[in-house]
Amino acid sequence: RISFICDDPEIGNFIYGYDPRVCWIEDRYYVTWCNCYHGPTIGVGYTYDFKEFYQLENAFLPFNRNGVLFPRKIKGKYAILSRPSDNGHTPFGDIFYSESSDICHWGKHRHVMSPRGRWQSTKIGAGPIPIETIEGWLLIYHGVLTSCNGFVYSMGAALLDIDEPWKVLYRTEPYLLSPQELYECVGDTPNVVFPCAALCDAPTGRIAIYYGGADTVTCLAFTQVDELINFIKSNSKV
Amino acid sequence: RISFICDDPEIGNFIYGYDPRVCWIEDRYYVTWCNCYHGPTIGVGYTYDFKEFYQLENAFLPFNRNGVLFPRKIKGKYAILSRPSDNGHTPFGDIFYSESSDICHWGKHRHVMSPRGRWQSTKIGAGPIPIETIEGWLLIYHGVLTSCNGFVYSMGAALLDIDEPWKVLYRTEPYLLSPQELYECVGDTPNVVFPCAALCDAPTGRIAIYYGGADTVTCLAFTQVDELINFIKSNSKV
Amino acid sequence: RISFICDDPEIGNFIYGYDPRVCWIEDRYYVTWCNCYHGPTIGVGYTYDFKEFYQLENAFLPFNRNGVLFPRKIKGKYAILSRPSDNGHTPFGDIFYSESSDICHWGKHRHVMSPRGRWQSTKIGAGPIPIETIEGWLLIYHGVLTSCNGFVYSMGAALLDIDEPWKVLYRTEPYLLSPQELYECVGDTPNVVFPCAALCDAPTGRIAIYYGGADTVTCLAFTQVDELINFIKSNSKV
Amino acid sequence: RISFICDDPEIGNFIYGYDPRVCWIEDRYYVTWCNCYHGPTIGVGYTYDFKEFYQLENAFLPFNRNGVLFPRKIKGKYAILSRPSDNGHTPFGDIFYSESSDICHWGKHRHVMSPRGRWQSTKIGAGPIPIETIEGWLLIYHGVLTSCNGFVYSMGAALLDIDEPWKVLYRTEPYLLSPQELYECVGDTPNVVFPCAALCDAPTGRIAIYYGGADTVTCLAFTQVDELINFIKSNSKV
Amino acid sequence: RISFICDDPEIGNFIYGYDPRVCWIEDRYYVTWCNCYHGPTIGVGYTYDFKEFYQLENAFLPFNRNGVLFPRKIKGKYAILSRPSDNGHTPFGDIFYSESSDICHWGKHRHVMSPRGRWQSTKIGAGPIPIETIEGWLLIYHGVLTSCNGFVYSMGAALLDIDEPWKVLYRTEPYLLSPQELYECVGDTPNVVFPCAALCDAPTGRIAIYYGGADTVTCLAFTQVDELINFIKSNSKV
Amino acid sequence: RISFICDDPEIGNFIYGYDPRVCWIEDRYYVTWCNCYHGPTIGVGYTYDFKEFYQLENAFLPFNRNGVLFPRKIKGKYAILSRPSDNGHTPFGDIFYSESSDICHWGKHRHVMSPRGRWQSTKIGAGPIPIETIEGWLLIYHGVLTSCNGFVYSMGAALLDIDEPWKVLYRTEPYLLSPQELYECVGDTPNVVFPCAALCDAPTGRIAIYYGGADTVTCLAFTQVDELINFIKSNSKV
Repeated sequence: RISFICDDPEIGNFIYGYDPRVCWIEDRYYVTWCNCYHGPTIGVGYTYDFKEFYQLENAFLPFNRNGVLFPRKIKGKYAILSRPSDNGHTPFGDIFYSESSDICHWGKHRHVMSPRGRWQSTKIGAGPIPIETIEGWLLIYHGVLTSCNGFVYSMGAALLDIDEPWKVLYRTEPYLLSPQELYECVGDTPNVVFPCAALCDAPTGRIAIYYGGADTVTCLAFTQVDELINFIKSNSKV
Repeated sequence: RISFICDDPEIGNFIYGYDPRVCWIEDRYYVTWCNCYHGPTIGVGYTYDFKEFYQLENAFLPFNRNGVLFPRKIKGKYAILSRPSDNGHTPFGDIFYSESSDICHWGKHRHVMSPRGRWQSTKIGAGPIPIETIEGWLLIYHGVLTSCNGFVYSMGAALLDIDEPWKVLYRTEPYLLSPQELYECVGDTPNVVFPCAALCDAPTGRIAIYYGGADTVTCLAFTQVDELINFIKSNSKV
Repeated sequence: RISFICDDPEIGNFIYGYDPRVCWIEDRYYVTWCNCYHGPTIGVGYTYDFKEFYQLENAFLPFNRNGVLFPRKIKGKYAILSRPSDNGHTPFGDIFYSESSDICHWGKHRHVMSPRGRWQSTKIGAGPIPIETIEGWLLIYHGVLTSCNGFVYSMGAALLDIDEPWKVLYRTEPYLLSPQELYECVGDTPNVVFPCAALCDAPTGRIAIYYGGADTVTCLAFTQVDELINFIKSNSKV
Repeated sequence: RISFICDDPEIGNFIYGYDPRVCWIEDRYYVTWCNCYHGPTIGVGYTYDFKEFYQLENAFLPFNRNGVLFPRKIKGKYAILSRPSDNGHTPFGDIFYSESSDICHWGKHRHVMSPRGRWQSTKIGAGPIPIETIEGWLLIYHGVLTSCNGFVYSMGAALLDIDEPWKVLYRTEPYLLSPQELYECVGDTPNVVFPCAALCDAPTGRIAIYYGGADTVTCLAFTQVDELINFIKSNSKV
Repeated sequence: RISFICDDPEIGNFIYGYDPRVCWIEDRYYVTWCNCYHGPTIGVGYTYDFKEFYQLENAFLPFNRNGVLFPRKIKGKYAILSRPSDNGHTPFGDIFYSESSDICHWGKHRHVMSPRGRWQSTKIGAGPIPIETIEGWLLIYHGVLTSCNGFVYSMGAALLDIDEPWKVLYRTEPYLLSPQELYECVGDTPNVVFPCAALCDAPTGRIAIYYGGADTVTCLAFTQVDELINFIKSNSKV
Repeated sequence: RISFICDDPEIGNFIYGYDPRVCWIEDRYYVTWCNCYHGPTIGVGYTYDFKEFYQLENAFLPFNRNGVLFPRKIKGKYAILSRPSDNGHTPFGDIFYSESSDICHWGKHRHVMSPRGRWQSTKIGAGPIPIETIEGWLLIYHGVLTSCNGFVYSMGAALLDIDEPWKVLYRTEPYLLSPQELYECVGDTPNVVFPCAALCDAPTGRIAIYYGGADTVTCLAFTQVDELINFIKSNSKV
């Protein structure tokens, strides 16, 4: 396990952590993750070299999960998406936006989007770091349905306004991917497709989406940025 | 109902609000309350004259209740207590501390205290604005027990460190007051003693505690600051 | 207990029954009540003389409660309001309209109104037999709020379209009466005001509303039909 | 999606629909399905040619599912089986019988059978249109068990009295089929065998049962009517 | 608080205890109570003089409450009634009988009676030490109903076979006493009548029943043994 | 199904039984199982020859499961492990120890261990008959995690003190085996590894562990006693 260097042992004391996202902003790699501090909240740290990691203050009060930074400051502020939750298998969850000048104190909280129908009817949460496109921030996210056998996690996408990212321009009504392969349906947590990271190769427009399958294996899906944006726009219901 | 002047209609749009606390800091009266913004969170506003009220950004993401400011900056920062919650009759709840330079962006979240046994076994929440004393910040708070007939709200108190108020110096093991009078036991919500405000008369040391009875009437209890501090210290279990 | 004469022992077999309403239509007194037939549903019977009572088929499949007939046929059909429920302390409930040619087979089910905010946020149910007025059917109903100490029953009113009673013309946003007196707040079920019957004296316009207090005592409230209609219309939110 | 022609937009307005059954009666194909009208209830429609579809009134008030018509009038009345439910993943459910002269107004509601032990301990619901046999109406139905991992749907069968179909003559104590194949155990909803339609070839007595596997694939099972009736009778517990 | 002398600190370590019953058997006073040992179970102790108290092994594994000894050995064995429960506000509960040669090891567990209808529909528990009468053991017990505002505790009675006390000879269908007085309806736990002790004066036949009112006050009710037995027998449904 | 010979039909009346364990003590094979007597409890019986089986008194009051005898008397007493539970899919559960002189009356109940973190965070229960080793009683047990899709059963192990087996000397922090193979993840109850029996070949030290996979198949895992003990001791957190 990575050990973070932290000034304050109250914050640096590691209980549990999971679902990390890594985001290059300006001069370093920031890491956010679901960090236990009297319940799950959003831990924040950074590294220059993936050798030494420094831990900062938690971004929010508990209970929160799926904290995802934007890859550049917006109007001079760090920006983050997160999903307020509770302490268990949260049966609700909207995505919110917050901003900060110093990556320590956060405010100007704005509601971004809510669960809505079928595959995304119970809760939603930001997945990979948003990708900046000419059409807006491309956000790949997960949506959860509650079947009579528990949660089913699928993958959708949205386009957010470049300057005011809490404004949703387009959002997929159908899912992009739902658990159908054996390795997505069978494992530690059945029926889970959970997107965590997306790498976009600017020259070719190819996007590689890393997602968890059944909370057991790491899967990889590919698409083209144009194709994905077209799909979102032509299958959108905001 | 009071109408707040607010720059941003997204924040100024009033859905519901309750449990206000008023706190004089430096040059004005700040108001915090349980404010609905996609769930309950902590609304913040101020007034100079109780004629015009101005609304600022919500302090936190939902879900939160019982946001209570300290009556002066601590080490140059505004300071607040709050209790993360959920969207319903929350069955859990700890008190946390947060701070801010601009009363808009909040961080350095610290855990203050948890529920613990009998009358305060389900959840706790800050009541009146803390009173500065020579022994520390005097915090009067409510504690909740879950009987087989629902929640019972009682009143306790604690002394918090002056400079690091997330450190609890003393905390009452027994309650100060529990619902026993007919007007505390019978009403819109039976068996509720809910402290909201405490006025301390410095020259005489008399404290007047305003508290809600059965969510129906406003009640008034008196004590002496010395007597109360002595009681806390001699009945303390931190 | 009243014994009903019933052709079919499958229906006539009494398990439990409560919340009766009596309604004169054409030539006899009809009685509807919450009748157990594999769960609560709407029992139907009649009497000419309050000496002999005849039981008919249950109006609906379980689970249903608060079945209330209209005091005359509407467009040639018997008409009823009811509230689909579940088998316990139902935490939801809308009022529906249904009609019948023979008071045995029911159809053309229409939604009338849903719970909505504060005192009527959990469920609602028809109370007394609707009173025909020049402004529409005057429906007095109960609304339920879920406090942290259980259900609170209050009383509201609405005006329904004379010919299409599933259309709500006006509906009180505030309650008419909520539990505040000791005999409404303390008893077998605390905090209950439950309207069951309303007698309107046409010459004087005086309405006597019989309602249960705390599921323990029968209470009586008086109003004037004009005054009540004015209140509904001037405090309406449909 | 099929669009129904409907006189009344209140009824014709499609929100969601699923689990259709098709039944030839006299001169046309009737369709019943789980239709959303302020919650799930039983939608009714018909077609002559599978080109134009006409929607009638919903048979019942919500909440109801698994409405299945009998393929001919019984004693001059249309007859239907249904299962009163609630608005979610209903944890209870008995099968009831109702009848109608006009396929619009329904009454004479009779209880048919309840959940009972092991694979059918949580709820039961009618599957295909009942098949008329010399031994009674052959009803294939699903039963649900609640494991510590959610619902498990299996398939059983019963023989109902020809003239009074609410009287159960025989009922399988063991299941006919439970989820065991990979395509029944893995998919959108794991561990589901859900029978929807059964075609009986009179000359040969062969029955083809169409059932859903894991809410994902359509499966087909074959049996002989004699063999099935023998199995029901020799493994019956009413 | 009473301190018990106990050989084994594992057992003697007091966490919490409540609902004691005192029973003279042969040469000493035995005390049983709801004792915390990894959850509520039945603590057992004795005293000769109410000055020194000795604690024995807990009678049962958790979770158990309302352990009540019989006042003499039955067929040479100590005998006890108890009610298996869970760790919270248990929503179920039957009374069982067990016996022991050494008041330490218990076995021959027999079911005595279950909840049943209305005031005793959720759970039941033995109250005072049973009184030996010519008609059998006179057991006064509490029954619990779950209203939409929580539990309601009432008092009933039964006659158990003298030699095989798990056989119920008579049992009151109506309650003896339900919460109706203000001091029974209002207090720490509203609507509670909880019988704990009954003293029978043999010469006069007068029984004094001590019972808790609203978990707040101790109440006293009087009856005659003959009158009570007659009531039980003439209002019995076993 | 095995029929037990039983003196008392109250005990011998079979409702349901499952999860048996067989244990040779002194002169016969004892069998314990989860036996229904007004809820699940621990049934006890024995056989000399696997032809005739005799049923004794149930060891405990309901609700209890996973009763497992030690294979010899300890300090002259029969000894058993069990897990108090409730009547459903119990969401809690600690292992306790009890002892008896006559295998009928049980007492001296001692807490052994509680759930703790990750794979064993919801409940734990004894698996096979403990194996006597030089390092203490080798107990293989199951631990349960509650995922958002239900329970996951894994296998761990502990070493208990030879003379006071309620004292845990070592306990595996990681699991020995969790559901990963298709036959452990897919079946009647997905994601279940449930150890029931372990045969130790003393000369070679080989242990064969029989465990249930997905509540559907019987699986077999092998290990060496030395290897297992070393693993427990070097991965222990008590």
